[in-house]
Amino acid sequence: MIIDVHGHYTTAPPALQHFRDAQLAGEAAELAQISDEQLRDSVERNQLRVLTERGGELMLFSPKASGMEHHVSDPALALDWARASNDLVHRLGELYPHRFAPVAQLPQTPDGNIANVVAELHRAVGELGFVGVNLNPDPSGTWAGPPLTDESWFPVYEALEALDAPAMVHVSTACNPNFHTLGAHYLNADTSVFVQLLQSDLFKRFPRLRLVIPHGGGAVPYHWGRYRGLAMRNGWQDPSDLWRNVFVDTAVYHQPGIDLLLDVVPVENVLFASEMLGAVRGADPDTGIEWDDTLVYVRRAGLSDDALRAVLGENALRVYPRLASRAASTA
Amino acid sequence: MIIDVHGHYTTAPPALQHFRDAQLAGEAAELAQISDEQLRDSVERNQLRVLTERGGELMLFSPKASGMEHHVSDPALALDWARASNDLVHRLGELYPHRFAPVAQLPQTPDGNIANVVAELHRAVGELGFVGVNLNPDPSGTWAGPPLTDESWFPVYEALEALDAPAMVHVSTACNPNFHTLGAHYLNADTSVFVQLLQSDLFKRFPRLRLVIPHGGGAVPYHWGRYRGLAMRNGWQDPSDLWRNVFVDTAVYHQPGIDLLLDVVPVENVLFASEMLGAVRGADPDTGIEWDDTLVYVRRAGLSDDALRAVLGENALRVYPRLASRAASTA
Repeated sequence: MIIDVHGHYTTAPPALQHFRDAQLAGEAAELAQISDEQLRDSVERNQLRVLTERGGELMLFSPKASGMEHHVSDPALALDWARASNDLVHRLGELYPHRFAPVAQLPQTPDGNIANVVAELHRAVGELGFVGVNLNPDPSGTWAGPPLTDESWFPVYEALEALDAPAMVHVSTACNPNFHTLGAHYLNADTSVFVQLLQSDLFKRFPRLRLVIPHGGGAVPYHWGRYRGLAMRNGWQDPSDLWRNVFVDTAVYHQPGIDLLLDVVPVENVLFASEMLGAVRGADPDTGIEWDDTLVYVRRAGLSDDALRAVLGENALRVYPRLASRAASTA
Repeated sequence: MIIDVHGHYTTAPPALQHFRDAQLAGEAAELAQISDEQLRDSVERNQLRVLTERGGELMLFSPKASGMEHHVSDPALALDWARASNDLVHRLGELYPHRFAPVAQLPQTPDGNIANVVAELHRAVGELGFVGVNLNPDPSGTWAGPPLTDESWFPVYEALEALDAPAMVHVSTACNPNFHTLGAHYLNADTSVFVQLLQSDLFKRFPRLRLVIPHGGGAVPYHWGRYRGLAMRNGWQDPSDLWRNVFVDTAVYHQPGIDLLLDVVPVENVLFASEMLGAVRGADPDTGIEWDDTLVYVRRAGLSDDALRAVLGENALRVYPRLASRAASTA
């Protein structure tokens, strides 16, 4: 079974953005009716078509990451926006139970808004059957908040442990012109969070917490020797110790990158993902391969059959146990 | 000839830090006499010993990067600090003309301080024979300033073009607890600056400007497909166009990373470097290879003899033309 753990609903009907625009304009915002037909249409020509054409079976599907905009500081707005966004991916999961498994946006704000975050986490995962969440390590968009290892985040980790659900650590729009959102901010966040975890004993306190770092782990696999050396010099844990709780996805868009990723990171810690429809669209004119068709690169990486099965699906079923129970209930 | 383009004077006699401490304490700071003997002692057991043991010949040597501390906002302090730091690496260049070529710290401050920066650039490169400079793309330490492509930086680029000297783009200490200086901030800066350049036409305006991005280009080579795809989608220049003006070093501390770097980046754009004594010290217990002994990894990367000569020295002589004239004058 081929499971893509990183898909975004970047093609929602315009009504969703109209709702958001009204929110941000300070108007009374109400999401207009969106029919099942509109929902189907929004994915059948897009993510679902691409998933099918490439031979994928199931996609973990979350609201558009750059649209989460946690830097907007009003807690009520953040909650309404997360719920509206989540309800749509939930409906898609109901319409296509074998193709989409919903992953939730959280109503984070720069100040944390942790009570609402935990409430929405329980609603989405505990009640609605979401299989995981996206956790933004930089809700301010300017890195004004504390690292993910700060105790202010602990209620989120307690909820994730209680629900036995992982979080993908995923920032939203950068609010600093030095960082292009898709080209720099996303990767910088992945790298920064890994080092935050490396310096801390977070997983001693939360041994069952599982975090997925997207975009191939940012710069981490490329600089793996640097992290091993820094850890030894600074008396940190061995970076490999993090592989008990940390996973990376395969959203890396060329063969040399995927080869390095699978050379450096243990095969049990790599989760197949395309991040589509995401940062890149279209095909490499040199090879004809679509940039985000990471299945091609992963298949060509020279893995054993067992390792390939692990990366393409078995790891996801282990890291996201609610996927398995969801599959059983919708079989 | 083996030229290491990225060495830092992290082992200066304590008098230098005492000077800095006095500055920061608001006291009248004067650098105590440091004898040639003290200078020799500070490098002969350290950078010079390691360089020699590994078979390197010449190192581009700049003040400690994390110590530049451009976030301290007083322009007079920044100028005194840069000059004191630069004068020491200049003396080392005079003591060991065939082993050290000095690279300057600039007196940047969060507000830019461009007049002083340009003046020190002319003093160091134009008068004292420095071969290049380190340019901090984030003098605030919190990314509060504009991207490197903003016109406020242009006087620096005009001076660099006039002097025909390159700049290594190198941040200093991070002033944000989310970013470990050596583990995250350095690499994030490398990545972010590459994307800033990719989005801009800076090199149309400054066609002879040359920038070296250290630490193997941050996350860029690992995510090369992402940048090609983003550029196509956004109508930016092809990332390869930047190779006319942008170079990356080999401060990547394991074989898979170096292999990927040399697979992805054209051989003419890769400059040998160790960043020693820098982020990592000691040896990998699995291989016995010292983390920052990048010469081992580069030699094992399967380059042709011509390509190896280019990476290890010839590229540096081309990118840093003052190295060649310096070599001639000290022959």
